[in-house]
This record gives sequence, structure tokens and C-alpha cells, in this order.
Amino acid sequence: MPIPYPEWTLGVHHDGSARYVSNPLPALGETLELHLRVPNDAPIQAVFVRTIPDGEQAFIPMQLEGKDPRAAWYTAKITVRNKRFPYRFKLIAPEGAYYYNAYGISRADAPESRDFVLLADFAAPQWLTGAVFYQIFPDRFHNGDPATTPKDGTPMEHPPYGVFTARIHEWDDLPNKGYSEPVVDLWGGDLIGITQKLSYLAELGITGLYLTPIFTSTSNHRYNVGDFYAIDPHLGGEAALIELRQALDRYHMRLVLDITTNHTGSQHVWFKAAQADENDPAAEYYTFYEHPKSYESWWGVATLPKLNYASQALREVMYRAGNSVMRYWLNPPYRIDGWRIDVWNMTARQKGYDAWGEVGREIRQAIKPSYPNAYLMGENFFDASPSLQGDQLDGVQNYQGFTVPMWRWLAGLDTGGWSEPRPAYSDTVPLPAEAAVEQMQHFMSAIPWGIAQMQFNQLGSHDTPRILTIVGGDVRLAKLAAVILLTYPGVPCVYYGDEIGLEGGKDPDNRRTMIWDASRWNNDLLAFYRRLIELRRTSHALNQGGMQFLYAAGDTLAYLRESERERLIVVGSRTARTEPLTLAVWHGGIENGATFTDILSDERFTVHNGHLTLSALHLGVVRVLIHTGA
Amino acid sequence: MPIPYPEWTLGVHHDGSARYVSNPLPALGETLELHLRVPNDAPIQAVFVRTIPDGEQAFIPMQLEGKDPRAAWYTAKITVRNKRFPYRFKLIAPEGAYYYNAYGISRADAPESRDFVLLADFAAPQWLTGAVFYQIFPDRFHNGDPATTPKDGTPMEHPPYGVFTARIHEWDDLPNKGYSEPVVDLWGGDLIGITQKLSYLAELGITGLYLTPIFTSTSNHRYNVGDFYAIDPHLGGEAALIELRQALDRYHMRLVLDITTNHTGSQHVWFKAAQADENDPAAEYYTFYEHPKSYESWWGVATLPKLNYASQALREVMYRAGNSVMRYWLNPPYRIDGWRIDVWNMTARQKGYDAWGEVGREIRQAIKPSYPNAYLMGENFFDASPSLQGDQLDGVQNYQGFTVPMWRWLAGLDTGGWSEPRPAYSDTVPLPAEAAVEQMQHFMSAIPWGIAQMQFNQLGSHDTPRILTIVGGDVRLAKLAAVILLTYPGVPCVYYGDEIGLEGGKDPDNRRTMIWDASRWNNDLLAFYRRLIELRRTSHALNQGGMQFLYAAGDTLAYLRESERERLIVVGSRTARTEPLTLAVWHGGIENGATFTDILSDERFTVHNGHLTLSALHLGVVRVLIHTGA
Repeated sequence: MPIPYPEWTLGVHHDGSARYVSNPLPALGETLELHLRVPNDAPIQAVFVRTIPDGEQAFIPMQLEGKDPRAAWYTAKITVRNKRFPYRFKLIAPEGAYYYNAYGISRADAPESRDFVLLADFAAPQWLTGAVFYQIFPDRFHNGDPATTPKDGTPMEHPPYGVFTARIHEWDDLPNKGYSEPVVDLWGGDLIGITQKLSYLAELGITGLYLTPIFTSTSNHRYNVGDFYAIDPHLGGEAALIELRQALDRYHMRLVLDITTNHTGSQHVWFKAAQADENDPAAEYYTFYEHPKSYESWWGVATLPKLNYASQALREVMYRAGNSVMRYWLNPPYRIDGWRIDVWNMTARQKGYDAWGEVGREIRQAIKPSYPNAYLMGENFFDASPSLQGDQLDGVQNYQGFTVPMWRWLAGLDTGGWSEPRPAYSDTVPLPAEAAVEQMQHFMSAIPWGIAQMQFNQLGSHDTPRILTIVGGDVRLAKLAAVILLTYPGVPCVYYGDEIGLEGGKDPDNRRTMIWDASRWNNDLLAFYRRLIELRRTSHALNQGGMQFLYAAGDTLAYLRESERERLIVVGSRTARTEPLTLAVWHGGIENGATFTDILSDERFTVHNGHLTLSALHLGVVRVLIHTGA
Repeated sequence: MPIPYPEWTLGVHHDGSARYVSNPLPALGETLELHLRVPNDAPIQAVFVRTIPDGEQAFIPMQLEGKDPRAAWYTAKITVRNKRFPYRFKLIAPEGAYYYNAYGISRADAPESRDFVLLADFAAPQWLTGAVFYQIFPDRFHNGDPATTPKDGTPMEHPPYGVFTARIHEWDDLPNKGYSEPVVDLWGGDLIGITQKLSYLAELGITGLYLTPIFTSTSNHRYNVGDFYAIDPHLGGEAALIELRQALDRYHMRLVLDITTNHTGSQHVWFKAAQADENDPAAEYYTFYEHPKSYESWWGVATLPKLNYASQALREVMYRAGNSVMRYWLNPPYRIDGWRIDVWNMTARQKGYDAWGEVGREIRQAIKPSYPNAYLMGENFFDASPSLQGDQLDGVQNYQGFTVPMWRWLAGLDTGGWSEPRPAYSDTVPLPAEAAVEQMQHFMSAIPWGIAQMQFNQLGSHDTPRILTIVGGDVRLAKLAAVILLTYPGVPCVYYGDEIGLEGGKDPDNRRTMIWDASRWNNDLLAFYRRLIELRRTSHALNQGGMQFLYAAGDTLAYLRESERERLIVVGSRTARTEPLTLAVWHGGIENGATFTDILSDERFTVHNGHLTLSALHLGVVRVLIHTGA
């Protein structure tokens, strides 16, 4: 039962960027300045910051610090009294008071879970600012050293099902399912191959790699790990990882590896020891219902025995001890830059036993004092916000806050909608932009701004179809998706091959081999990616600026990224618009006469009466409008 | 940027009541049935329950179980796999899929904090069902034994300010401030007096008492406790409490006492020992900056030294040990039925140290195994939802979810707006019903249904002005407020004297003495309260039924309470309506031809075309429309 608010309320804005918060990463006890922008003709009588130190509310009056032709700015000093420090604003107008929180403006008070939040004494990997990641599925990227590739027929342990054998493919073979046969399909990609292709990635503009698992394993995805302390010799072993690390250093690139905190492979050295002897120290890492045959496993998959965090010894070996798995690889000579934590949403949760939050806190406490720059990022297809309040992870794969609303808006693809047969619960009707933006705002407002900047945004992954396939092969829509990926707050990550137009449906089709014959690339798309990645890395507004949605209706959405140096408006349409779009940019505090240049078309547009009039929005057309100077 | 949804979506309903959940208090692992009501002409293709056991989503298809003339009902069996078990619904329609959670319906996915939630193995004090509480400020209710009243001039310790003296008032004197003088104003009310007046309370229909503190103290409010193990002799001491307990048993009434977990008085035996000897075991219960003079206190009030929960010994003596304060009074011969925890929002939070959630969990763990029926209820003027997820409190004083939206809707009174001078941050413009309902829904949807039924709803307390004064003395509006109090989900509590028309502004005026001369009562208001309380206690729909808002616009709101036995529609208007109200009751699944009787006017209304037409909504008029049979 919504009530319409006066139009001026659309121009109220604050976020956690440096234009609005004088120090986004304060120390506990530090005093900093907050700023709030409102339309300069808003009938506001007074503005307050509302904080709640130690659980009791306090109001701090804001001072009018200045007006420009479009906006009035209010400021107040606040002292950050708690490590997680929520705040909101209260605006007094003749028609009543409004609360303004990270979700928006309302006469009604709302739960504090939507407040803006500052994190004090927060160890953020600052190298993530401006980072652009690239996800690689190692078996399919490049075979750099055929000597490491297993021979066809090499035995691969898959207890309790027996021993499978490797089937080595030609590089251009398409992946097939193969799950019904005791065969492991391998293409032979390896770490040496990645090292050899770093110049390609550097040219693309990539600054960080996320590799799916590289520990010893008997599958091509390697999520059934055989030994957390050993790199798969078929990828080149530890020596290849060291070589990759050193090469990455030369390219100033970062490296994030994938760890399965939720389970091991059934052929893992721990599990084999646990099965062999129920008194083995590793036996308590697992849950045996009837030793050795019956045990808890991930989704009942017998090759993936679940790790049991009721065991303190497991917590020691996974992350607490100096040589624990999660610390070991952060040390020299490997010096990885962080972890992507597989199945994070289910880790330490088991038949009602729930130590999820506790283990999340312990992981941060174990890692960050020694490795404050380590990126702790988890897999979570659902609502990860409880893990994202500053005391656990730095971020997650942002499916709910980014990927899924993009898919649903562009193509009506819902989570899991790629399964065969398509599950009846999946939505197939494209979301209107209003609902997509609502979902993005829900999940961004549920976490601190500092965390939202570290959310790992993807258009697809090894777990989902590829974006070009999702949009039915329409490169115009794939470009629109790429623009949003590379202009949205968070850490953008390109899934290998998306940039050259690789297609692929559900697993395993989404894991086709990378193409290295440039004549088979979509070079236009590649150039587009390069340009957008460069923009992402160099634009102050994009890599650390604020974020405000300006428009969302049906097929079209628009948002503003702004910093003290520049303002950038992204406009995207999933269909052709026959009418010109008259975009109210006064919401973003933008003054009449300001000119914006579309970096994609070089067209110039000038603000009149608070609006930009944009003609010719063809299907999938994106305008990236830039204005230098705040 | 909301999008309009089709009208049928207004008729989708589920809540945690027995009509929709076959067992609202299940055991872990129990399988139960959920039911969902939708309009019978809704173009729904399929409906699913979405659960997330151990962090991974699962969809359970719902079956159409039947249609009645207005509604279609879907059902599914679910197994409660976690102690806190969130769920939502997904409805597939031709225009796309909708999520339906405790906040409402949306194409967008939302954070799980708004899911419906079942609590498994949850120790709920079931005696709260149908309970109606009465809050007493003991010094002002009735002086039953003048022999216990202190003599005028009795010394009252107020270190470090010195010794104040008691000033004993005539019963009809109005409270004055007196803060500037070293005087303690007392009227002499006592526990004996309460015991003597239980027949009055029984006639009113009261089933439980909440008393502000009764431990030894040197103030009239007694929030500066002198000894947690002693009842103030001026109230009659322990003997009077035992006598009250026994009398309450005869009336089948419950008793909730007030405990200051956040602080003691500066004259508390612990604090005196701590000040006398920094090696005293009690010294660590407090935070001394410079012993003995400088110490942490509540809001800097030197008479209220703050308790320091970094001390494990404090946790022992407050709640863990068998004879700890919180357990001691639950035991015979006192057998109190629960605690109202003062300043709960700040307990165990101190200059950035935050053990709030941890202490909340420990209190529940300490109390509930031995006293599963003890009601654990806290004071919290702000967002208490983190404490209300099943692992901490049973409820709080529901200021944010009930009291404040009522005040703001009826009278434009904001939290703290009674201070003098009025704080500039307080809102004075009455909220439209849309926003009041939005706020009520925000806070109800943020907690499990089972907890919402135990929220302590009040129209005012010893900390706020009285409701009749808030509405400017207009009894019609006070009646409207009373109706909503007594028909809303939760535990209604009448602040002593509200039922006879006692007025009172901010503290201490809100603590006027109870009037016992019936000729000075507003007997019409008292009869109204009695009738509504009786209805609350006897109406199945009111004391355990479902809850659905049907209407909210400007001056008028309406909601449905329903059970399998009856349906009850409450309609209230804060001003006169010149137009009849045509209320869409098909949203509530109510069929054409159903007749409703207004229990206040005996008028009858019949549903036509899915609507009730209600004429003559005068200012403050309330209709309580009842229909027997589901």
C-alpha cells in the first residue's frame, strides 16, 4: 500500500563513497564527515544523522554546507563508536519527517538491517579497487605442457564407485556429459598454460585470476579434492603454481584459488585414513553413520564426504593453525591473494547443526591478522547478507544481488532454470527493470557499502550457462550485460571466453575449451570488452564512486556513478525504444547545461530543465555518458 | 520504483497461525502442513514452498486442496530441518513468478530476513495465548499498608550526590519533577495494595501483571536497584511478594517483574563493595576508569553504574548460576512468570564492546531449560529484531512495531517527541495509514510469527505520555487505540489507569496515582475496555488467529483476524469519513453473502461483490465486525 512521495524525494542521495563519507575505512573511534545531497529546492527544514551507538539512538544535526545550481549539500561529523556502525538520515519537511536509509526514503521507520553501515578497523583488500577478475576453469583454458596431461586411460579413483579412467580429448571437442560412464573427460589445460597466456589477459586488462580448484583430484572440475596440500601434477604441481605466481607478479595480477570448506573428495588422504581406522585423528573431520561405509556427504553424493565443523580439530587444520590449509597457500612461495570458498552457504551446517556464522567469524579471525589483504569470498546462490556484515567474508559471488536480476531482466532466466527438464519453479518471464532494480537494491542495502564494493559480480560461471547463450546469442544484449557488469559497484569478473563470444549452455557445455585461434573470435566483442575494462580500471567514478539508480521501467534502466572527478551515466535498453528517453538527471544533482559524451558513440548531450533527452535507443543499446568534473 | 501488480495478488495470504500452519510450535524434524490462500480466480499455474535447509534452497510443490466460493487453497507438507526454519512461497503465473514472503508479494527476490519463519523446539510460554497484561508503577497504584510507607524525611542514599530524603505525598497530589532537589517523591503504593486490588483487575479481565522494579531502591521508580536479592521493605518486602503471588494464583494471574541487566544503583551492595575494595569479587562487575570515583555508567548518570558483561563472574551471578538473580525469583516461593529486561537494547554493549547477542543467547540457555514457561521480554525502543529470532528473547516492548506507528498515525507523536523542548528531529505530522501499516509490517515481517505473538504491545508506559493525553484528550481516539491494542497480534498490556481515563504527559506526569473513587472514573471508557478485553480473551481469531491488513489509506485502516472458527474485521478511522467505505474483503478470502455484525453497534453488514459497504464512519469510529464460522 505505497503512498506517493513528493518528487523532490527522488533527488535525495547518500552512499558510502568518498564523495559522501570522508573516510570509508575509518578506525574505531574516528570522527568523520558525512554528506547528504538533496535537490536545492527541496522544502527541507532540518536534517539529522541518526546513529545507534551501543544500541541507543542518537541524532546529530546536519549543517547546510552549500548549494550548487541543482543540489543542496548537508554535512555532519560523526564518531564511529562501534565496529559495525549503522546510520540513517531523518529529513524534516512541512509534510512530515522522512527516514532515508540504504534502501530509500520513507515516512515509516524500517528495521536497521537497511541502514547505511560503516565498518571500523576493517581489513579490506584495497587492491580490489579497480580490479577486474577473470575466472578460469583450468582444464579448459590452455594446455601449456602436454607432458603433464594424463595419458588416455589413466586410472582415477572414485570411491565408492571404483576407479574411473581418463579420456583425453582433442582441444576442440565439445564437452559431453559422461556422468553415466566411469570416465573422466579431460582436455589437458594446466597452470603452465595459464602462465603462457598472461599477456593475452594483460592486454584484455585483467588484474586478477580466480581459478576453480587446482588441488589434486580425480575429476576435471577438481571439486572432489584428494589433498588440500598438493597441486594436481596434471596441472603442473606446486612448481607450476610458483611459476604462475611469479609471472603474475610481473603483470601485477592477483590470484584467488578455490577451496572446498564444505567437503573433500572421497579419495582425500584424510577420508581414506578416516575410513581405514575409526580412531584416526581425521575420523572426526567427517560424520560416519556406520563406519566406514555410511557417512554424511554433500547432497548425498558419495564422492563428496561432508566436513564436520563440530570437530575443533577440523577447524584447526582448515584455518586456525599456522600451517592450516587456508593459511598455507597464502604464505610464500605461493602467496595467493585470497580464497573463493566453495558451497559457503552450506559450510558448517548439517542436519540442523549450524555453526555457519561462527565458522565465518573464525575464518576471518584466523586469516586477517596475518593476511589483511587476503580476499575472502564465498559461493552463495542465495541470501549471503548474514555473512557480509564485516565480521566474516569480504564478499560472495553476487548471484542474488547482481547476476540473477540481470539474467531475469535480460532473458527471463531464473536460478536453476537451466536444468533439464526445466524445473517448474523457475520463472521464465523476463522481469521488468523495476523489479530487477528492486532486487539489486534489496541485496545492496542489506550489506555495508564497503562490502558491496567487494562483491564478486559475474554474468555467469562454471555453474551456469554463459551469458551469450542466456541472451539467445544476441551479441547486442551480451554487450549490454558486459557494460552493466563493468560499471556496477563490486568486483567484476569475466568468465573465460565470454569476451571472445564463447557460447555454452548448462554444465558441462559451459566449460568448452578456450579458443586460441583469433580468426574464430568475435573481435568486435573482444574490443568492446577491452574498452570497457579499461574504462572500469581508469574511471574514478567507476572504480570507487557512488551509485544511484536514476530510472527503471520495463525494458530500460539507468544509473549514475559519480566521484568528485567525474560523473558517468549508464543507460541500457533490452529492446528498441521507439520514443526518445527523457531522463530526469536532476535526481542525481546534475545541473542544467552539463554536457555528457557517450563514450561508445561520441555523441554529446546537454542537460535541459533537469533532463537529458536520449534518442535512438536500439535494442541492447547502451549509452555510457561521461562528464568530467563533478 | 514500484510496479503495479495484478489485483489478484492482494488476495494472497499466509501467516503462522493454525489456519495456515498445522503446528505452529513443531519439534525439530517434524513434518507439518502449510496452507496458502489465493483468490479462486487467480491465474496461478503452480505454487511452491521454498525452504533453505542448511543453507541450500529447496522447492516443494503445493497441491490445490480445495476451492470455496472466494478462495483457492494450496497445501504442502514440509519437514522442519533447522531450529530457525525460513520459508517463502513462489507462485507461477502467466505474467511471471512471484515471491511471497512475510512482507508481501513481489516479482523480485528479497533477503531472507523477510521470510516466514518456523521455530522448532521452541520453548514458548503458551499461557501468553489470550493473555491481557496490566502495567503497574507500584508507588502509584494503591497504598495497601501505610505502615510500610516511609516517614517523611527518611534518608535515601544517592551516591555520589549524597543522601536525599523522602517526601511523602497525599495520594491525589500530582507528580512534579523534583529532580533539581535532593528529594524523593513518594506516594506509598505497595505490593499489599496491588494484592488488595486484584478483584478490580480480575473484573477488568486482566490475566497478567507487569510491575516496574520492586527491589530495594532509593527512588520512586526503583530503577536504581540497591539489592537484586531483596524486595523493597517500603513495598512490603518478600512477604508481600509471596502474598501477592498466592493471591495471583487464586485469580489465575501471571506476574512479570522488571530487572535492570544493564546497571545497578550506585548504592547497590555490589557497587559499594566494589568501590570499597578494588579486589572485591564484585569489582569486575563494573568498569572503573579510576577506582573508586570514575566508572562507566548509563548515559553518564553517576547513580546508575553500568554492568560489564566482559566479566564471566557477572554473567554467573546475573543468570547462569542456580541461585543467580534471574533464576532466584523464578523459584518458589516467588515463582514469578517472567522478566521484563530494562534497557535491553544497551545491555552488554559498552564503548564498542558488544556481547549483546551473546548475552541474549546465554540468558535464554540459562533460563529456558528449567523454566520453559518463563516470559523473557525486553525493553527496546528501536529495532529489536536481532534479539527476536528464537534464540534470545520471547518478545520486547513493541514500540517500533506497534506503539510508535499508532502514536504517529493517531496524533503525530514521534519517539521522544514528548521531551521539553521538543527535539527538532521528532516528527509532528501524523503519518498516513499507509505508512503506519508499512512500519507495522516491516517489524512484524522481520521476526518469526511465533515471536510476533509474544511481542508486548502497549499504547504507553511509565516512559511515555499516556494515550489519552497523546490524542489530545479525545476519548473517541483513545477508544480507537484501545481497539487496535486489543485486536492486534501480540500480548496487549494496559498501562494502569488508561482504562479509567487517566491522563498524563511526559515523565513524571505519566505516573499520576491511580484513582480509586469510581465517581471520578470515565465509566464509559472502563466498560469499553472491559468489553474489548473480554473479546480479546474469548475470541479464537483474536487470541490465536491470523492477521491480514485489508486497507490502509490516510485516515482509515482495516485488518482481518481469522481462525477456523471465526473472522473478525477491525476498521478504524482517525477522522470522520463523509463517504461510505467500500472495503474489499475478497482480499481476505471472504465470500459474497457472508454477514458480519458490528459488536459495538450491533449493525449487520453483508458482503456483495467481494466488498462490505460501511457507512457512517465518524471520527475515531471503530467497527469490530465479527463473523462466526470460517
